[in-house]
Amino acid sequence: MGKTVFAGRDIISIRDLEKEEIEHILRKAEEMEKGPAPLLRGRTLGLLFFEPSTRTRLSFEVAMKKLGGEVIGFSDARLTSVAKGESLIDTIKTVESYADMIVIRHIREGAARLAAEVSEKPIINAGDGPNQHPTQTLLDLFTIKKALGRLDIKVTLVGDLKYGRTVHSLVYALAMFDATISLVSPKGLEMPSEVLEDLKAMGAAIETSNELDISDTQALYVTRIQKERFPDPEEYEKVKGTYKITLGTLEGARKDLIILHPLPRVDEVSPEIDGTPYARYFDQVANGVPVRMAVLGLVAGVL
Amino acid sequence: MGKTVFAGRDIISIRDLEKEEIEHILRKAEEMEKGPAPLLRGRTLGLLFFEPSTRTRLSFEVAMKKLGGEVIGFSDARLTSVAKGESLIDTIKTVESYADMIVIRHIREGAARLAAEVSEKPIINAGDGPNQHPTQTLLDLFTIKKALGRLDIKVTLVGDLKYGRTVHSLVYALAMFDATISLVSPKGLEMPSEVLEDLKAMGAAIETSNELDISDTQALYVTRIQKERFPDPEEYEKVKGTYKITLGTLEGARKDLIILHPLPRVDEVSPEIDGTPYARYFDQVANGVPVRMAVLGLVAGVL
Amino acid sequence: MGKTVFAGRDIISIRDLEKEEIEHILRKAEEMEKGPAPLLRGRTLGLLFFEPSTRTRLSFEVAMKKLGGEVIGFSDARLTSVAKGESLIDTIKTVESYADMIVIRHIREGAARLAAEVSEKPIINAGDGPNQHPTQTLLDLFTIKKALGRLDIKVTLVGDLKYGRTVHSLVYALAMFDATISLVSPKGLEMPSEVLEDLKAMGAAIETSNELDISDTQALYVTRIQKERFPDPEEYEKVKGTYKITLGTLEGARKDLIILHPLPRVDEVSPEIDGTPYARYFDQVANGVPVRMAVLGLVAGVL
Repeated sequence: MGKTVFAGRDIISIRDLEKEEIEHILRKAEEMEKGPAPLLRGRTLGLLFFEPSTRTRLSFEVAMKKLGGEVIGFSDARLTSVAKGESLIDTIKTVESYADMIVIRHIREGAARLAAEVSEKPIINAGDGPNQHPTQTLLDLFTIKKALGRLDIKVTLVGDLKYGRTVHSLVYALAMFDATISLVSPKGLEMPSEVLEDLKAMGAAIETSNELDISDTQALYVTRIQKERFPDPEEYEKVKGTYKITLGTLEGARKDLIILHPLPRVDEVSPEIDGTPYARYFDQVANGVPVRMAVLGLVAGVL
Repeated sequence: MGKTVFAGRDIISIRDLEKEEIEHILRKAEEMEKGPAPLLRGRTLGLLFFEPSTRTRLSFEVAMKKLGGEVIGFSDARLTSVAKGESLIDTIKTVESYADMIVIRHIREGAARLAAEVSEKPIINAGDGPNQHPTQTLLDLFTIKKALGRLDIKVTLVGDLKYGRTVHSLVYALAMFDATISLVSPKGLEMPSEVLEDLKAMGAAIETSNELDISDTQALYVTRIQKERFPDPEEYEKVKGTYKITLGTLEGARKDLIILHPLPRVDEVSPEIDGTPYARYFDQVANGVPVRMAVLGLVAGVL
Repeated sequence: MGKTVFAGRDIISIRDLEKEEIEHILRKAEEMEKGPAPLLRGRTLGLLFFEPSTRTRLSFEVAMKKLGGEVIGFSDARLTSVAKGESLIDTIKTVESYADMIVIRHIREGAARLAAEVSEKPIINAGDGPNQHPTQTLLDLFTIKKALGRLDIKVTLVGDLKYGRTVHSLVYALAMFDATISLVSPKGLEMPSEVLEDLKAMGAAIETSNELDISDTQALYVTRIQKERFPDPEEYEKVKGTYKITLGTLEGARKDLIILHPLPRVDEVSPEIDGTPYARYFDQVANGVPVRMAVLGLVAGVL
C-alpha cells in the first residue's frame, strides 16, 4: 500500500476504511511501538475538543510529540470565539490556517464530516456525539490482535449499545474481520436496528440478548451505562447490578478471555479485575499512542 | 533600522509606532513568510488570556513555535491564582520570571499598559477591552498591502465603530499611510469623537455616514455588531439587515475590492462571499502568523 | 549521593526526605541555575491540576521544557473524563501510560499518596488540600539559603497556620535544619497541635504567639488569611489589619530581614514592600524553576 493511499485523507468513520487499509494501519502502529522518529518535525496538529476527553486528547498529543510535531488547539470552546457565536465552519477554516492536520471532538453527529467538507487539511474524527470514533476502534482492534493474535474471534459487547459511539464503530470493523458478535444490553439500550441491518448485510454472525453469558467469549467489551438514559432510577440500579463485571461473573470464562473497556468506567468493571490477566483496558489506553502515531503519520503522508 | 529600535520594546498601541517602524515590521513579516528559522530557540513566550480568543492566541502560539520557542500561560484565569484574588501586577511579575516576552488580553482598558509598566520583559497587547489590539492592525495592513500593493487607498469601515477595538487601532494606522477613510455605522455606534478629532489633527481624509455605499471602495472592513449594544431588539434587527454584506451588496463594487473582517463574524458577511476573490478574511487569519513572528522576533532583538 | 537514591521516587511530603537528601536537592538546584541542559529529551511530564494554580503549574512546565522534555495534562478536570465520574485511580493509571512522571494537585488530602500507590511512575505532590506541598518547601529553603547563606536562623511564620499547606510542609523542614521557629497566628488559626507535637519531638525551638514581633527575626514568612475561614466578618477585618506587613511594621527590623510569601497574596504584604531589599517573594517565584528542574531530574534518574 503506497503512501498516496492515506496522504491527505480524512478519517471520519471506520466505514470509510477498507479491510486492507485497517490492516495497514495496524501494521504501521506495530512499527510505531518500536520507537519514535521525528517524522512530523515542523508540522502542527490542531486539537479541537468541544467535549470533555482525557485519553483521546492526551494520546493524540503524545503521539504527535513523539513524532516530533507540535500541538495547538483548545479543550474548552467557551474560551474561544465559539463563545461569541462563531460557526464551526469558521473555526475550522481558521485552525486549518495554523495546523497541518485537525482532530475534532464535537457533541453534534456529523460535525467531523462537515469539518472535512470545508477543510483542505486532513480531519480526524475523535467522536461526533453518539456516532463514530474511528481511532478508538483502531486501538480496540490493535489491542485484540496483540492479545489474541487474530480478529476472527467471538466478541461479546455488553452495556449501552444504543448511545455508545465506540461500539457503533467497533461492530462494523469486527464484522469486516469475520468476528462472531454477541450483543448484550438492557431493554431499551439495544444496538440500533439500522446498525443490525447493516451488519447482517455484511454477512456478520450476530447474536443478541439481554442476559450476559460469557462462557465461550474470547473478548468481552464493556461499556458504560449512563444513569441519565433511564427514566426510572430503580430500573437503572437493577441493570447496573446485572451487568457489572466482577470476579464472580468470570467463573466459567475462558482462560484467555480479555476484557476491554473504552473508559471512563463508573462501576461496570469492578477494580478487583484490574490485577488479573483478563484486564486489558489499560493496555487499550497505552495502545492509543502507537495507533494514533500511525494514523497521523499516514494522513500526513510520511509513513 | 537597527535591532536596538525594537529589542525589549512593549507593543501596546499602534500609536506607539512610527510609520517607518510599521513599514519595517511589515517587511520583516514578509521575510517570515518565506519560512521559519529557530531564532527564538530556548526562549519562552507567556500567553495570558483573561478573555476568550481563537485566532490571536493560536497564531501567537504557532508563531512562537515556528521560531523554535516555547509557550506557557493560561486561557482561563479562573484556573489560576486570579481566582484567589491575585492582582494583575502580581500575576505579571510572576509570569515574567518564567517568560522572556508576554502577550496579554484583558477585559480592562489599560491593562496591557499597566503590565508594561511593572514588567521588565516586553509586553504585547492582544486586546485590552474596547481599546487597542495593535498586532491585529499590523496584520490588517499586511493583508491590504499584499492584496493591493499599497496602503494609500480608500477603505470603508462598516459596523460597530464605537466598541470595536480593531477599528480603533486600524484607523490611526490608515491615517498614517494616507488612506481615505469612510466610516459607516448605525446611529449610536459611531466612531468616538475623540478618535475623529485625532484623525483630523493627523490630516486624514475622512467621511462618515449611516449608509453603506461601496462604489469606489478598495477595501471594505466589516466588524461584528453585538446585539447586546442595542436597548431595542427591533432596532438591532433593522441595523443587522442594513449592513449585512451579500453578493447583492457587491453589485457595482470595484473588481479588485477586498473584504476584510477581524472575525469572529456572526452574520455580517454572508458565507456566499467566502468563495469569491473579494473575501480576504481567511487571508487575514493566515497572515497573523508571519506578522506575529515578526513582532516576536523584533521585540526579542533577533530580527 | 548516587543517582539511584532518587530515581523513580515519589515526592509526596517533605517528611519523606532526609536532611541530607534535601541538601542534595538544593545543591542540584544550584547547578540547574547555571543553565539548562536537555537531560529529559524524549521524556514527558504529566501535569494534573484538579485545583487552580499559577506558579506551581507554570514553573513545573518551564522546568520540564528547559530540560528538553514535553508536558501534557490538564488544568480543568471538568474537561476530562473526571466529569463523567472517572475515579482518581483510573485517571492516574491512564496518564502514567503517556507520561514518565506525574505532578498532581488535588483538593483532597492524601490524593497524591494514593496516586503514588497505584502508579509505577514517580508522583510529585503539588498540593493535596491543606496538607503538603513539598516542592514549595524546597524552593522556600532554597530562597532562604541563597539570601542568608544558612538555614539555622530565626524564622517567623505569620498568618493562617491552621489551613495553609505551605507552612505545614515548611516547619518540618525548618526544624530539621535547626531553625528557631516563631509561630504567629490569630486565635482559631493556630498551627495544629499534632504538628506542634511532632516539632517538639524533633527537638525544635518553637515559640507561639498571637502578636507579631519581628525584632530579631531573620526571615518573615507571611501567608494569606482567607476571609471564608472566619464566621464573623468583623473578626476577619480586625485580624487582617493586625498582620498586614507595611513599611511601618518593619521599623526595628534587622537590616538583613527577608520577607517570604508563597503567593498569591491578597493584602497581607503591602505593595510598598515590593521595591525594598526585604521583599523576596518574587525571588521565590523565580527559584521555583531551578528547584523543580532538580526534582524532575533527580526522580527521572538523570541527575
